[in-house]
Amino acid sequence: MAESMQGLKRTHRCAELSAANVGETVTIMGWVQKNRNKGGLVFVDVRDRSGIIQVVFEEGKSDAELIEKAAKLRAEFVVAIVGRVEKRSGAGNEKLATGEIEVIPEQMRILSESETPPFPIEENSKTKEEVRLKYRYLDLRRPDLQRNLMMRSRVATLTRQFLSEEGFCEIETPVLIGSTPEGARDYLVPSRIHQGNFYALPQSPQLFKQLLMCAGYDRYFQIAKCFRDEDLRADRQPEFTQIDMELSFVDVDDVIEINERLLAKLFKEVLDIEVTLPIPRMTWQEAMDRFGSDKPDIRFGMELHDVTEVVKDCEFAVFKGAIENGGSVRGINAKGQGGMPRKKIDKLVSFAKDYGAKGLAYIAVQEDGTAKSSFSKFMKDEEMSALMTAMGADKGDLLLFAADKNTVVWDVLGALRLELARQMELLDKSEYKFLWVTEFPLLEWNEEQNRYTAKHHPFTMPMEEDLVYIDSEPGRVRAKAYDIVLNGNEIGGGSVRIFNPEIQSKMFEVLGFTPEQANEQFGFLLTAFKYGVPPHAGLAYGLDRLVMLMAKEDSIRDVIAFPKVKDASDLMTEAPTAVDKKQLEELGLSIVREKVKQE
Amino acid sequence: MAESMQGLKRTHRCAELSAANVGETVTIMGWVQKNRNKGGLVFVDVRDRSGIIQVVFEEGKSDAELIEKAAKLRAEFVVAIVGRVEKRSGAGNEKLATGEIEVIPEQMRILSESETPPFPIEENSKTKEEVRLKYRYLDLRRPDLQRNLMMRSRVATLTRQFLSEEGFCEIETPVLIGSTPEGARDYLVPSRIHQGNFYALPQSPQLFKQLLMCAGYDRYFQIAKCFRDEDLRADRQPEFTQIDMELSFVDVDDVIEINERLLAKLFKEVLDIEVTLPIPRMTWQEAMDRFGSDKPDIRFGMELHDVTEVVKDCEFAVFKGAIENGGSVRGINAKGQGGMPRKKIDKLVSFAKDYGAKGLAYIAVQEDGTAKSSFSKFMKDEEMSALMTAMGADKGDLLLFAADKNTVVWDVLGALRLELARQMELLDKSEYKFLWVTEFPLLEWNEEQNRYTAKHHPFTMPMEEDLVYIDSEPGRVRAKAYDIVLNGNEIGGGSVRIFNPEIQSKMFEVLGFTPEQANEQFGFLLTAFKYGVPPHAGLAYGLDRLVMLMAKEDSIRDVIAFPKVKDASDLMTEAPTAVDKKQLEELGLSIVREKVKQE
Repeated sequence: MAESMQGLKRTHRCAELSAANVGETVTIMGWVQKNRNKGGLVFVDVRDRSGIIQVVFEEGKSDAELIEKAAKLRAEFVVAIVGRVEKRSGAGNEKLATGEIEVIPEQMRILSESETPPFPIEENSKTKEEVRLKYRYLDLRRPDLQRNLMMRSRVATLTRQFLSEEGFCEIETPVLIGSTPEGARDYLVPSRIHQGNFYALPQSPQLFKQLLMCAGYDRYFQIAKCFRDEDLRADRQPEFTQIDMELSFVDVDDVIEINERLLAKLFKEVLDIEVTLPIPRMTWQEAMDRFGSDKPDIRFGMELHDVTEVVKDCEFAVFKGAIENGGSVRGINAKGQGGMPRKKIDKLVSFAKDYGAKGLAYIAVQEDGTAKSSFSKFMKDEEMSALMTAMGADKGDLLLFAADKNTVVWDVLGALRLELARQMELLDKSEYKFLWVTEFPLLEWNEEQNRYTAKHHPFTMPMEEDLVYIDSEPGRVRAKAYDIVLNGNEIGGGSVRIFNPEIQSKMFEVLGFTPEQANEQFGFLLTAFKYGVPPHAGLAYGLDRLVMLMAKEDSIRDVIAFPKVKDASDLMTEAPTAVDKKQLEELGLSIVREKVKQE
Repeated sequence: MAESMQGLKRTHRCAELSAANVGETVTIMGWVQKNRNKGGLVFVDVRDRSGIIQVVFEEGKSDAELIEKAAKLRAEFVVAIVGRVEKRSGAGNEKLATGEIEVIPEQMRILSESETPPFPIEENSKTKEEVRLKYRYLDLRRPDLQRNLMMRSRVATLTRQFLSEEGFCEIETPVLIGSTPEGARDYLVPSRIHQGNFYALPQSPQLFKQLLMCAGYDRYFQIAKCFRDEDLRADRQPEFTQIDMELSFVDVDDVIEINERLLAKLFKEVLDIEVTLPIPRMTWQEAMDRFGSDKPDIRFGMELHDVTEVVKDCEFAVFKGAIENGGSVRGINAKGQGGMPRKKIDKLVSFAKDYGAKGLAYIAVQEDGTAKSSFSKFMKDEEMSALMTAMGADKGDLLLFAADKNTVVWDVLGALRLELARQMELLDKSEYKFLWVTEFPLLEWNEEQNRYTAKHHPFTMPMEEDLVYIDSEPGRVRAKAYDIVLNGNEIGGGSVRIFNPEIQSKMFEVLGFTPEQANEQFGFLLTAFKYGVPPHAGLAYGLDRLVMLMAKEDSIRDVIAFPKVKDASDLMTEAPTAVDKKQLEELGLSIVREKVKQE
């Protein structure tokens, strides 16, 4: 029995009302949060996007029919109420923004009724995520998700405003593009007109934004949907959103300077947090050496210590072997964790093994100054004490060591450091520590393919001073690449691009491309670069992750309106689904292998 | 031989310089538009996004080596120039914004060289569009396209700013969604994880935006990419952009009021044109009767006249037959076209036949008052003169008549009216006439399927006063739907949505859906509507077409950075392309039919 709203016009959102409106007749519309009958009075909390207002139906003030109607309301009914704002007679409700006032209704229409929802609409829901995602439209009514999505909208708006003021043009690049074999797996879109051929959905607008620089647009940005058909992790989605930008006639410092002001603006206006500028910078090498990570969380210390020199002459085979193979021995000091039970230490050992360690050596310094250690029997006393000194060990500290190739040592200790920080509750979500990581290696050795691959992409500019090594020691060449890191998350990254055709050719040569191969994959970009290309550089943020951190959430699903789950399906719409035979027929395709979807 | 820009920092864009900068040393960077040697002087025009500045290399002012370097510059080289701004010695160039000044260089670096481009970078290019699209990055350097894309960016920015201020939240809806059989053809995306199942790309965010209203977001907007796999016409693209919005607790007038202010703002701030508000409204019925179109171009008159009553007793079989079959006879008066040669009139007749007419009756009133007519022999003199009076005919007018079913008559005369306006040069692109068309029919009779289909979509709200006819005369029911029309183009449209489950059931019944079918196709929306749904309404603009009209272009390709051509391929990247066997293998698909792409 839905009533029409004809003739009514909302005057305020619920929580826009305040003591300033006392005495006014207002019209509000929203959802019934709850209603209570109490001694002939009916209290109805009405909710909309802005918050909640209490409506009080009381004999003598509202007529009997209306009170009866109110008594029959149930949660999630949609109502329109015309009434007078009054100061609350009883004690106010401090929890509510509108806690000082209430509305005394003269008229109420039930615009829409509701069945009992499958879960209550409330903050911090304890309902299983699968259920909430199936009824996402109800889940999205919860105030925490509403705050998140409105924050996301605000972040996007402020970003656009800032970049427009800085002379950036927002230009849409195509979503139906060609597939490129390098990089992650593309989502493909079959062509009907050109049967047997496919579009791909973009993993990023990279090539197009470089073409826009070539076309003279000077400063481009876009908040762009991007797509990767990867096996999903907790913080990945098949479609995700980038704040993407590219600038002409600039170098590293220009990109960093503009982006620092952007971040400062966002954090000031959205969270009222001052970001101290300039944001500290750290080279990739320093980040790996000190934190075992190219995206260090610098909210806490527990830095890595390189103790290779200290233990290089010891008899402990694990240390010795690693060093002889060109690796290193490094450790972290978990302050105050010396009393950690053996079982918990064993868990850390197995955690380290998941990250590629063969084992994990430890020294647990007891409160009495003695030490329990997994390897002290192989060490001389003076070696042990030198090691503890090098690690800055105090009574009660837990020292953990990895010995292996540098890359393994960094991975293991970097992960362990974060795991210990979680256990030791060192991570405060309301503390925001930014860091630029710079001077990444240009290339990465790919064991499988027995060749170098680009760490960033093949268009990343090497550092000028390292160009001399590009033939002799390609692995030593650093790139003009930079990542912006927040609390241990890479929230953005970019680079200066190659705009010199000779360096570009050299780069392809180092990557093992023949000129023909380079041309087949990137022909239109290489042709474009023959006609006058400006020096340019860019950066892209992962918007989902940035907003997730700003909203203090653990999952990007909590800042996306309609997210997909791990198997890339949508629990609400059940996409992907089977399609009509006719549709495949038109595309000239047939299904060879089918997997029945699990419900 | 590209030089590095290291150590230089651009101080101004080229056309940011003016007489106010005379005496300053500036650094500009851009493309060489042209250079001329003239009596030992070298004049170089440097271009960037902002415009052009003249740089003058002159003996005594710049050193000899520099002059020699300048003389060797060619079009589209990218240069960085440090120099002093001076007042032009000779006569200024009034065509250039920077025509009063020139830069006297102290330093110049060639940042990038260029081969001779395949076509000159200039306004109003005469180069074939195919060539320009293949080298789109060069085409995009042309000032007209740069103005268009920058205008598009500005339209998007202003729209977002306006809607944010009006309390709209921008919320991203998914691009990988489920396929729906109704509507246009979907682009499909095969799922790798759920082999044999497919996502579809959205034709619009319709269902998601309604769910967002159900979820309490109150006011949503999005500038969203949408996709339709249709055979392309001149003004269609496989991917296009909508300004999409939805509002809760509103009716028709609220949506119209906000959008009028939006349009007025856009036209004022982008084109400095005042849109007189309110924009006139016309019912669909009136639009058809007066203009033979549901998107009338009201920049000119030449309205349709219904002369059925006037000719109902005549002996002309064509008129008589049409009227007897329930149709009508209507005409338009092409003022001053009475002298049109017979051949040209014959062309109009064949034009009319393309629109479904069996023929076209005409009266050409000569300057001497006599009339040439295709059908006067079947008419009495007084019938002819009554007809001419009804048509408001003067000496020298051309009267054209169609007689058929109303729908055919409207189509024919509507198209003819536009064709004549083109021939008579009545269409001025700098004149902007807006019109709301309202009260569309809810349903359309589909001859093929022998059932009613929704004219808009199945969620469009009928007008309350017409609900009584929904069973007896469904074709008579009008919808709360509205289109915004500009100069004969539908630039946007929308409707109030059904939020009452009983009306929704009735609607599906009228459309011939069983409850099971309705549920299969729109189940999640129908379930959502069980849990309290606010009255809501929305509207979506075609951004491409809006900007095309604002930029006074004839094709949306001129306001899209990287458009596709009629066969939905991209001439620059050659997408769609063949893909690796491995990629299809992973998707569990095989190609049954292949069409070799034409190069």
